[in-house]
Amino acid sequence: MSKIFLQCRECKKEYDPTFKYICDECFGPLDVHYNFPPITKDTFTNREQTYWRYFEMLPIIDKSNIVSINAGMTPLVRAEKLGKKIGLNNLYIKNDSVNPTFSFKDRPAGVAISKAKEFGLSSVGCASTGNLASATAAHAAKADFPCYIFAPSDIEHAKIAQALSYGANYIAVDGTYDDANRIAAQIGDSKGVGIVNINMRSYYVEGSKTLAYEVAEQLDWKVPDQLIVPTGSGAMLNAICKGFEELETVSLIDKVSKMHMNCAQPHGCAPIVNAFKNNSDDVIPVENPDTVAKSLAIGDPGDGRYVLKRLKQYNGIAQESNNKEILDAILLLARTEGIFTEPAGGVSVAVLKKMVEDGKIDKDETTVCYVTGNGLKATESIMEVLSRPQVMQADVAKISAVVK
Amino acid sequence: MSKIFLQCRECKKEYDPTFKYICDECFGPLDVHYNFPPITKDTFTNREQTYWRYFEMLPIIDKSNIVSINAGMTPLVRAEKLGKKIGLNNLYIKNDSVNPTFSFKDRPAGVAISKAKEFGLSSVGCASTGNLASATAAHAAKADFPCYIFAPSDIEHAKIAQALSYGANYIAVDGTYDDANRIAAQIGDSKGVGIVNINMRSYYVEGSKTLAYEVAEQLDWKVPDQLIVPTGSGAMLNAICKGFEELETVSLIDKVSKMHMNCAQPHGCAPIVNAFKNNSDDVIPVENPDTVAKSLAIGDPGDGRYVLKRLKQYNGIAQESNNKEILDAILLLARTEGIFTEPAGGVSVAVLKKMVEDGKIDKDETTVCYVTGNGLKATESIMEVLSRPQVMQADVAKISAVVK
Repeated sequence: MSKIFLQCRECKKEYDPTFKYICDECFGPLDVHYNFPPITKDTFTNREQTYWRYFEMLPIIDKSNIVSINAGMTPLVRAEKLGKKIGLNNLYIKNDSVNPTFSFKDRPAGVAISKAKEFGLSSVGCASTGNLASATAAHAAKADFPCYIFAPSDIEHAKIAQALSYGANYIAVDGTYDDANRIAAQIGDSKGVGIVNINMRSYYVEGSKTLAYEVAEQLDWKVPDQLIVPTGSGAMLNAICKGFEELETVSLIDKVSKMHMNCAQPHGCAPIVNAFKNNSDDVIPVENPDTVAKSLAIGDPGDGRYVLKRLKQYNGIAQESNNKEILDAILLLARTEGIFTEPAGGVSVAVLKKMVEDGKIDKDETTVCYVTGNGLKATESIMEVLSRPQVMQADVAKISAVVK
Repeated sequence: MSKIFLQCRECKKEYDPTFKYICDECFGPLDVHYNFPPITKDTFTNREQTYWRYFEMLPIIDKSNIVSINAGMTPLVRAEKLGKKIGLNNLYIKNDSVNPTFSFKDRPAGVAISKAKEFGLSSVGCASTGNLASATAAHAAKADFPCYIFAPSDIEHAKIAQALSYGANYIAVDGTYDDANRIAAQIGDSKGVGIVNINMRSYYVEGSKTLAYEVAEQLDWKVPDQLIVPTGSGAMLNAICKGFEELETVSLIDKVSKMHMNCAQPHGCAPIVNAFKNNSDDVIPVENPDTVAKSLAIGDPGDGRYVLKRLKQYNGIAQESNNKEILDAILLLARTEGIFTEPAGGVSVAVLKKMVEDGKIDKDETTVCYVTGNGLKATESIMEVLSRPQVMQADVAKISAVVK
C-alpha cells in the first residue's frame, strides 16, 4: 500500500501521487491523502526540532529526499500578558517569525522542494514578491537546484536582497503580479520546473498543515478551542484544518469538531470577510487591494470558497482589521510578549482583540493566534506610527531628568 | 549553601551575589561562580526548548523571576554543503539569527533582566545602537519594566523601529557611542537602573555561555574540536569558554582542554587580531572602526585581553576578514545552507574559510561556526555586492529563454 495518493477535492477522483495538481475530469484541486501507519505520541518524542519530525504524515516517500534548513517547531508562546490586556486567560501565540527565512513559508516551500527532488525535477521556482521568494530560494540553495523567482518589477530594492542572497534567479516581469504568476505557470508546465505554489501546490500546502501538528503537540495533544489565522489565498487556513483532522484520524487528538476556526483579513483586501458577512458562498475578488498587510494582499483568493466552508464546518467567523488597528496590534504584541511581527501578524492580533471585545471568545477558552512573519521586513510601515526620538544634549543631568 | 557567588576575575576576592559588577579592591570584573547541584544528561531531557532549560546553571535563584520570550535552543545546523565547498567533513553552524529578536543578544539580555527582577529593580536599559537595544527592549516589555536605550543620535530610522516597537524609551544622545555609554553608566548608578551591559554585566554574560551548553547538548555532550566566534567586546567568546568549563565541572563533558577556540574580527576593527599577530598581551584600541560589520565595531574591546588568554589556553588563533570577504561569506552561507546572516556572521564564515585554506583546521575535525545575527538588518550593505535584476518584458517566449 502506498504512503499517499492524490484525490480531487471536488469530484473525489483518485490519482497516483505524481507531478500533477489539477483534476483531469473537473479541474478541481488535488489534495494529498494518506494511508497512515500506526502512530502514537511516542512516535515523535525525542525527534529533531523541525517539522520533519512528522515524516510519517508528510508526502515524501524516501527520507533521503528531505531538503531541510531546520524550519518548524517554532515557539508556541503562552501569552499571559497579552491575554490579560485583552481579557483572555489561556492565550497562545504561534510565533513563525523565527523560521530560518523568517516566515511560515519555510513550511510549504520545504515540502514542495523535497517532493520536487523526489520527482527528479531539476529546477524549482515560485511566483511571489515577498516571503515565499526567500523560502523557496533558501531551500533551493540547500538542494542545489536552480531557482526562478517570478515577480512584478516594481518591488523595493531591500525586499529582493534576501532572495538574491540565496542565489535565486530573480525574474522581474514588466507587469503585474498576475502577469508574473501566469508566466510562472506556463514556464513551469513547458519546462518541467517545479513551481512550488503552482504545479507543486498539492504537496506545497502539506507543509502548512504542520502548523496544526506543532500546536497540538505543544499543547500536549489537545485541540485549541479558538484559532485565529491570517488569510491571503486561504491555503494555510485550509491546511491547518486538514492537519487537525489528520491528527484525529490517527487518534492523537479527539473532538476536532469542537474547535472554532476563524479567518482574519486586512480591510482593503478582505474578500472572504465580505462573503462571510454577506452570508454568501461566492468570494468576489477585490480588484485593487489596498492594505499595509502586503503579504495578505491577494485580491482573488484561490482557496477562498473552501475557507468559507471551513468556517461553517468549524463554527468560526471571518473578521477584518484596518491599517491603524493592524499597526497598533503590532505594537501591542511587541510590548506585551516581545514578539515583532509584520503586518500580517498584526492582522491576526487585531482580529483576536476585536473578537474578544465582541464576545466571540470566552475568556477561559484555549486560544491560538498565528503570527506568520517578521517585523524586520516592514519597518518602514511600522515607523509611520512611531515618532522618531528627540535628540538630547550629552548632559547627564538633563538626560537623568527623563529617566524615572 | 547559596547557588551562586561573585568573584573578581583578577584578585579572586569573593562577594555575595548582589547588584554589583566591579571589585572594590582592584576594580577587576566580577564573575558569577556556582555551587552546582548534581547534574546529569537526564536533568535537561524533555525540558522547554529555550536556554532556560539550563536553570540550575544560570544565576537566577527563584524560577518565578525568569523573564522569557522563548529564546535559545536555536538550530545547530549540520552544514554538509558549506563543509564540502570549503573542505570540511564535520562542520556545524550555530544559527542564532532565529532568536525572538533575531540575534544572540536575547541570551545575555534575558538573563540580566531576570536578575534585575530578582534584585527588585524597577527599570532596565542598555547602551547600544543595534541588536542589544531590541533584545533588552523586548525582554523589558515582557517583564513590564520601563526600558531606556542610550544610543548616539546618528542612527538610521529603520534601525530604531524594532526597539521602539517594543515600547522602549529611546534616548538619542547628541554625541558618540562612548558618550551614550558614559551617560548610561552614570544614570544606571545614580538611579538604580539595571543597565544590562554595564552594571548588570556579571549576570548578563552568563546568558551568552548558553551558546556553549546548547552546542554541547546538540552534539550529544561532545566538545567540538574547533570553534569560530565573531568577536566585538570579547564577552561572548569568554562566556562560551566558561560555559564549556562548567560542563566539564559537572561532568557532562570531558576534555574541554582539547578544544581550539578561535576569534574572528573584521578588518577595520580587529584590535584583538592585531595583538595576537604581534604576540602581544596588550590590546591597542582602534580609534575609528571602519567595517561593514557594525555590530563588531567596538574599537576598545572590554574583554580583549581575556580573549587573548583564552586563545592561548585553548590553542586557538585570531584572524580577520575584510569587507569583501565578509559579504562574499554571507552569500556563500546563504547559497549553501539557506542561512541569511548579518555581516558579523559573515566575519566568522570568512575566517572559517581562511583557516581551512591556511591548514589551521583538519578536514575531519568537528567544527562549530557561530552565526549570531540576522541578515534582514543589513540588506543595504548586502545589496552592494548583488546586482539588481534586469526587468524583462512580460513575454513567455522571451522569459522562457532564460530558464534552463
